[in-house]
Amino acid sequence: MPVKLSPPQASQLLPVKGVQLGFAKANIKKIDRKDVLVITLAPETQVAGVFTQNRFCAAPVTLCKAHLQSGKGIRALVVNTGCANAGTGELGLTLAKQTTKALAELLNIESEQVLPFSTGVILEPLPAEKVIAGMPAAIEKLKEDNWLNAAEAIMTTDIVAKGTSRQIELDGKTITITGMSKGSGMIHPNMATMLGYLATDAAVSELALKNIIQYAVNRSFNCITVDGDTSTNDSFIMMATGQAGNDTVTETSADFYALRDVITEVAIALAQAIVRDGEGATKFMTIAVEAGKDEQECRKVAYAIAHSPLVKTAFFASDPNLGRILAAIGYAGVDDLDVSQIELYLGDVLVSEKGGRAVSYEEAQGVAVMQESDIVVRVVLNRGDVDAKIWTCDFSYDYVRINADYRS
Amino acid sequence: MPVKLSPPQASQLLPVKGVQLGFAKANIKKIDRKDVLVITLAPETQVAGVFTQNRFCAAPVTLCKAHLQSGKGIRALVVNTGCANAGTGELGLTLAKQTTKALAELLNIESEQVLPFSTGVILEPLPAEKVIAGMPAAIEKLKEDNWLNAAEAIMTTDIVAKGTSRQIELDGKTITITGMSKGSGMIHPNMATMLGYLATDAAVSELALKNIIQYAVNRSFNCITVDGDTSTNDSFIMMATGQAGNDTVTETSADFYALRDVITEVAIALAQAIVRDGEGATKFMTIAVEAGKDEQECRKVAYAIAHSPLVKTAFFASDPNLGRILAAIGYAGVDDLDVSQIELYLGDVLVSEKGGRAVSYEEAQGVAVMQESDIVVRVVLNRGDVDAKIWTCDFSYDYVRINADYRS
Repeated sequence: MPVKLSPPQASQLLPVKGVQLGFAKANIKKIDRKDVLVITLAPETQVAGVFTQNRFCAAPVTLCKAHLQSGKGIRALVVNTGCANAGTGELGLTLAKQTTKALAELLNIESEQVLPFSTGVILEPLPAEKVIAGMPAAIEKLKEDNWLNAAEAIMTTDIVAKGTSRQIELDGKTITITGMSKGSGMIHPNMATMLGYLATDAAVSELALKNIIQYAVNRSFNCITVDGDTSTNDSFIMMATGQAGNDTVTETSADFYALRDVITEVAIALAQAIVRDGEGATKFMTIAVEAGKDEQECRKVAYAIAHSPLVKTAFFASDPNLGRILAAIGYAGVDDLDVSQIELYLGDVLVSEKGGRAVSYEEAQGVAVMQESDIVVRVVLNRGDVDAKIWTCDFSYDYVRINADYRS
Repeated sequence: MPVKLSPPQASQLLPVKGVQLGFAKANIKKIDRKDVLVITLAPETQVAGVFTQNRFCAAPVTLCKAHLQSGKGIRALVVNTGCANAGTGELGLTLAKQTTKALAELLNIESEQVLPFSTGVILEPLPAEKVIAGMPAAIEKLKEDNWLNAAEAIMTTDIVAKGTSRQIELDGKTITITGMSKGSGMIHPNMATMLGYLATDAAVSELALKNIIQYAVNRSFNCITVDGDTSTNDSFIMMATGQAGNDTVTETSADFYALRDVITEVAIALAQAIVRDGEGATKFMTIAVEAGKDEQECRKVAYAIAHSPLVKTAFFASDPNLGRILAAIGYAGVDDLDVSQIELYLGDVLVSEKGGRAVSYEEAQGVAVMQESDIVVRVVLNRGDVDAKIWTCDFSYDYVRINADYRS
């Protein structure tokens, strides 16, 4: 079960002026399940995206990038689950184009104004005809107050729908930010098998939006990992409809930082929700690496810990087998690391220093922390002034079960 | 259960003239279990070692390196299971020194002539007094024909003992090579939680032995991975007693390559045995990456596949979910990889080419290969003429069980 994560109430996901959402049950892989989502955007909506860096990036990712670059103005999104349309070569691109063309015709816009997204099994051809057949029903259901249905429609192995909203005031206008995400395995930065959508009715310039999305992603989706696998389809999209009536936020606006920070807060909540719903997760772990020379080495150490199956199974067992964390620090690839300088904390408990067990440490202290479902592992490198933080989860029987059964 | 791996018969592990082995049950962690091993070496034995590159390398590793460098000539080894004496700071070094000093006194040699090895739980102090208390019994049992007992004495989570022998003729003399290894989790190159010992009665020069060990390790222990974790204690030791009566093999001897190759063969058998007995393993996988630009990129791709929990669980499930392999290739970190050039084979079956599913591929073919317990995954990058090959195993419920329970 997800670690301290409940699905949002429908009323908690606030509508965003200019963003309508509608779903369909198109029987793409499973029967009687929401599996196609259509989102439409008011004219003049600014849209920015960040995508997977996997060399086998999926056909819809390729198409998204091209359509965003076309400069024609994005007016609609279509998302399907059940098939990732990845590892599908030229045919995959053709099929993805069929879906954007079909939706464009139904909405009386151009193909380049549609962004396609797919998530599910890799290496199987997209059943484009099913996706297309679902579109009219999805369009019929389009409305602004439909975020929970939308969040449910993009789920795959997710146990709970993920979404959240915030509001702030800009120029005396109430600005709404609502986002949703999906993903629970193959989660790793740059990015995860994860889809994330964040919309605001604020008016934001193109440049400011691009700046904000990069800032927010670096502090949210690029700080999570479940199993170290980077998917072929990861996409995070930000949409700013400009319907709230505020003065357009640019990078030099006084409001820029306020908007950036609340959007980042939403992105962090969406990213953490993915880890809390990580496949088989029973623990949510924050790995904080402090006092490093640079961010890269802090992240190296954090990811070595977060990716170690031995560390992850020890957390699953609530076993303070902390030597496994030391071993992971040791092989993280920081060449000139002086281990005698490192302090390791489990929660507030000093576990290790001077290359060995802390004299003050009692195993009972470690056991107590390991019983918690939210655990902070803190590594103080004592060789600089840079910190980094990532979030991950443990590794359980259920991870194996879910991933051994996924296609069956 | 180990994948196609039975323990050797005692008669299959041939004595090596000049190498005596004796064990004791010293109750270090468990009762009534062989947990201390003493090996003695004839005078003038050449000894070389390769050790973990983990920055948290264990106290015995530090001591081994120092003693090998002392130039005093190694005459004995002592191995204990149950405690790794790693992450133990200055105290760990003191305790390790106590054990080498004690064995040196019992054997009437110098401390620097003893190499210590420990394997087991990290971050706990070595019960040096128990190791020392076990030494007299181990010394009493010293004999040349004792390799199977020795291989059993160094086991931790291993299910079967691992050892093998080969013989060749040099200068009309029969040369024997016998080796043993242990390790089944935290297995990753540079190196693994693994101990390996290989002895020969051949006369070999110091330089030739160092050359051979590096060559052999690069093609054996540095080509295996179970879970990507590099341990704090990994050590591989080669001993050449020179008792066979051959002319000393140097790097320029005609015999050099014959000896090097048969030693490499033994090292590969010992390394593969570790993977076949990988924690929870049900499949033995060879990941062959071919036609790359250089060895580094071939290994990057091979390890990305071998470390992917999604790939490993799919193999456990005998599910030809080959898209997961493509995804791993895609995120391996080879920046300018042209995925449209890549061919992916499962066994002899062409699964993917031109960035997508091979037209000729039928799922039933993939399923048939996945039913095997020995599976070759072959990735042809088609961008150069370098190949690399590594060995790994799948990821099962039992991996989680074993590692969640290890300390209890």
